[in-house]
Amino acid sequence: MATPEQKKFVSQIDANKPALIDRLAKAVSIPSVSGDASYRKHCFEMADFLLDELKRLGATAQLKPLGKQVLDGQEIELPPVVFADYGNDPNKKTILVYGHFDVQPALKSDGWDTEPFTLVHDEKTGRLYGRGSTDDKGPVLGWINVVEAHQQAGINLPVNLKFCLEGMEESGSVGLDELIAAEKDAFFRGVDAVCISDNYWLGTTKPCLTHGLRGITYFKLTISGPARDLHSGVFGGVVHEPMTDLFAVMSKLVTPEGKILIPGVNELVAPLTDEEKQRYDVMDFTVADVEGATGSKTTISTDKATALMARMRYPSLSLHGIEGAFGEAGTKTVIPAKVTGKFSLRLVPDQTPEAIVELVTKYVEAEFAKLGSKNTVHIASEHGGKPWLADPNHWNYEAAVKATQTVYGVKPDLTREGGSIPVTLTFADTLQKNVLLLPMGRSDDGAHSINEKIDISNYIEGTKLLGLYLHEVAAHAA
Amino acid sequence: MATPEQKKFVSQIDANKPALIDRLAKAVSIPSVSGDASYRKHCFEMADFLLDELKRLGATAQLKPLGKQVLDGQEIELPPVVFADYGNDPNKKTILVYGHFDVQPALKSDGWDTEPFTLVHDEKTGRLYGRGSTDDKGPVLGWINVVEAHQQAGINLPVNLKFCLEGMEESGSVGLDELIAAEKDAFFRGVDAVCISDNYWLGTTKPCLTHGLRGITYFKLTISGPARDLHSGVFGGVVHEPMTDLFAVMSKLVTPEGKILIPGVNELVAPLTDEEKQRYDVMDFTVADVEGATGSKTTISTDKATALMARMRYPSLSLHGIEGAFGEAGTKTVIPAKVTGKFSLRLVPDQTPEAIVELVTKYVEAEFAKLGSKNTVHIASEHGGKPWLADPNHWNYEAAVKATQTVYGVKPDLTREGGSIPVTLTFADTLQKNVLLLPMGRSDDGAHSINEKIDISNYIEGTKLLGLYLHEVAAHAA
Repeated sequence: MATPEQKKFVSQIDANKPALIDRLAKAVSIPSVSGDASYRKHCFEMADFLLDELKRLGATAQLKPLGKQVLDGQEIELPPVVFADYGNDPNKKTILVYGHFDVQPALKSDGWDTEPFTLVHDEKTGRLYGRGSTDDKGPVLGWINVVEAHQQAGINLPVNLKFCLEGMEESGSVGLDELIAAEKDAFFRGVDAVCISDNYWLGTTKPCLTHGLRGITYFKLTISGPARDLHSGVFGGVVHEPMTDLFAVMSKLVTPEGKILIPGVNELVAPLTDEEKQRYDVMDFTVADVEGATGSKTTISTDKATALMARMRYPSLSLHGIEGAFGEAGTKTVIPAKVTGKFSLRLVPDQTPEAIVELVTKYVEAEFAKLGSKNTVHIASEHGGKPWLADPNHWNYEAAVKATQTVYGVKPDLTREGGSIPVTLTFADTLQKNVLLLPMGRSDDGAHSINEKIDISNYIEGTKLLGLYLHEVAAHAA
Repeated sequence: MATPEQKKFVSQIDANKPALIDRLAKAVSIPSVSGDASYRKHCFEMADFLLDELKRLGATAQLKPLGKQVLDGQEIELPPVVFADYGNDPNKKTILVYGHFDVQPALKSDGWDTEPFTLVHDEKTGRLYGRGSTDDKGPVLGWINVVEAHQQAGINLPVNLKFCLEGMEESGSVGLDELIAAEKDAFFRGVDAVCISDNYWLGTTKPCLTHGLRGITYFKLTISGPARDLHSGVFGGVVHEPMTDLFAVMSKLVTPEGKILIPGVNELVAPLTDEEKQRYDVMDFTVADVEGATGSKTTISTDKATALMARMRYPSLSLHGIEGAFGEAGTKTVIPAKVTGKFSLRLVPDQTPEAIVELVTKYVEAEFAKLGSKNTVHIASEHGGKPWLADPNHWNYEAAVKATQTVYGVKPDLTREGGSIPVTLTFADTLQKNVLLLPMGRSDDGAHSINEKIDISNYIEGTKLLGLYLHEVAAHAA
């Protein structure tokens, strides 16, 4: 099935294996933690590292400054975004690839078995341990490995590539949306499709493509009454307690089985088609996987497809906590004067944050009114993110399916994620192009945990996948 | 109405006024904060101060050591209890007086208008500001002032006095219950009745006697499921969330109007008699007092007697908070794996902690079972304290009523408190004698707040009240 050029590319990657691991080791050794001001210089160092790699390969690369931010009480420069163009042949398709070069914090004392910023090769398991190995330095280097291997093997890269590599993904992608909007008709002009390699297989054995993400709306429900905290001995039974009201309202949002009780919210969910239902049935997944991940037998449904759909295609509502109440250990007998309950809804098509905010606000206010309390309610919503769903029949996905079959010999699962990757939506909305999430790592890589790893096979085969995907894109265009 | 001897005593107190204020200033200047290890030496200093005062007056006084405790990570000596006998005439009644010489922490930077450990006389308002002025150094010195004035005026004190003054009241009275039990037939032998001056008038103008306290039982309701906190994007809708279950159960404990929903709890409340109901009708109190104290219009009932009974003679249930949930500012989207809801019930006769624990446990487990959740529930109860109710027709109360009428020209309100003063119950149970709570200060003294104060009139007239109460006790015996 593979063309001679594809075969040459694949052989080159296999031949490069030790060098590709060395490159990842170099990248992991730069502790580019974006969430800690004292590590900020390493984010710049990492940007320079990537800039050099790209320039070395002949790309037109530049650092785009994003201005300043206040972090840990000091005003500091944001890490730049690395922009690069590799090729500008008008007869080729142009693929925009996104990745991030910043990482989550990591200290050996967090419980790591090895030094987090040293890539450690475990010969027995074939795994590479280190912060950023899978999230997202491995995938970012994957693209560079692809370009390099083509040059080494004397093959033309069959598409034009645009790189957008950011250094603030783990810290809210500050400034990125604005940059993308500003560069829409400049740097991003001519993009035909987008590919992001920054998520994971559903399990540990079968590759997947991801074409959907849930959105989110976060609510802060504040109930206030007394001007100050009160002694429950003196005032218990005498006054309307904000905590009592808060529990009354928040207990009416969702059932223990996860059913959202807010009228209108479930009605906005797009109906399930037979075609979609069949995708869940074939996915590489079992309820035991949920039990393994949660360390418990608390999965609501014992049916695999139902559990998958709960995560991927239905909304959910979670209660996170209460600000202003007594949250410490011990036995304080306070009546808190003002409490803010936090909860969020994960949204799916055709829900929008605007519609959900309206429904939730109306419902919460109505439920509070039923209480007959003399306290006061206020509900606010924050950081709404729309759900995202891409057309999986687009050539961008068809190319990835074919490439996966070539590399892994299997048709990938077509998954959706329960969480959010906000930049996906930004690209889809701003550029109005199809976006593909093409993961390199596995579900057990521990992206934000201790002992983050990437299997060597995922790094090497994943690099082949990225390259062959570009070939299939080109083949489709031809 | 007053006897010549009573009149001489009253005149002597009036003559001593400047000296009595000086004595209080001396006591306030000793920062005997029991809750902070670095202040512990001042608790000893304060015990020595009282020991000297009592010995100077001819009392047989001693310091009773209580052993060690661990505080702020260090093992330190507990402040001693001051025991003293003044008089041992077998023909006189013996009154045990209790007070405490430790105070709440106080720093000027907490928001005090004056230095907290300097007694400041505000000439305009006639108030004495300083930590401990009303809680409880003023009342403790009141008893000493009484003995001294009798000696100065050449009058016999008509009763025997026993002093039990502790230095750990603000920090859980560590060791006191055991000492009282151990000394029951030794130091405490021969006590006829107990008088504690460590609470406050219901309002700011009318004196009261207090004959009841609510008890308390504190509950920790833990719901656990996943082995670790989960990401709501990945697991929201997929697993049973402990927070959802906790809100479901805790919302079924009490209504916004304060009605306890646990079957059997309200049925244990002693019925209201006409005599008792009339006491609430005449009390110096308005719903506006609640509104003033809470800084809000959140009082459940606008009927004065109903509001008073809610505080004094009915149980209440307050929800305090959740341990293990997200309690900070911001918008974390966590699914907490294990959460512990905290709530407590204030108990009244004939409720007992044992009976309440049984009812609450049964109800909570039944309500949780109804949820059909795969999570796990566990309920634990802590520091149960029985409610206390003394017979207000006892001679101990009759003496205090008469003395109040002499000093203030008014029949005192007969109140109950909504909170707890655990030593009251200890004396009542251990010594099996009538206990009277005879407050000196006003409701607005700010006992545990910034700018604690006692009105000079309360300190001086209150000292007279303590002395005349002893005379009325003796008159009853005669």
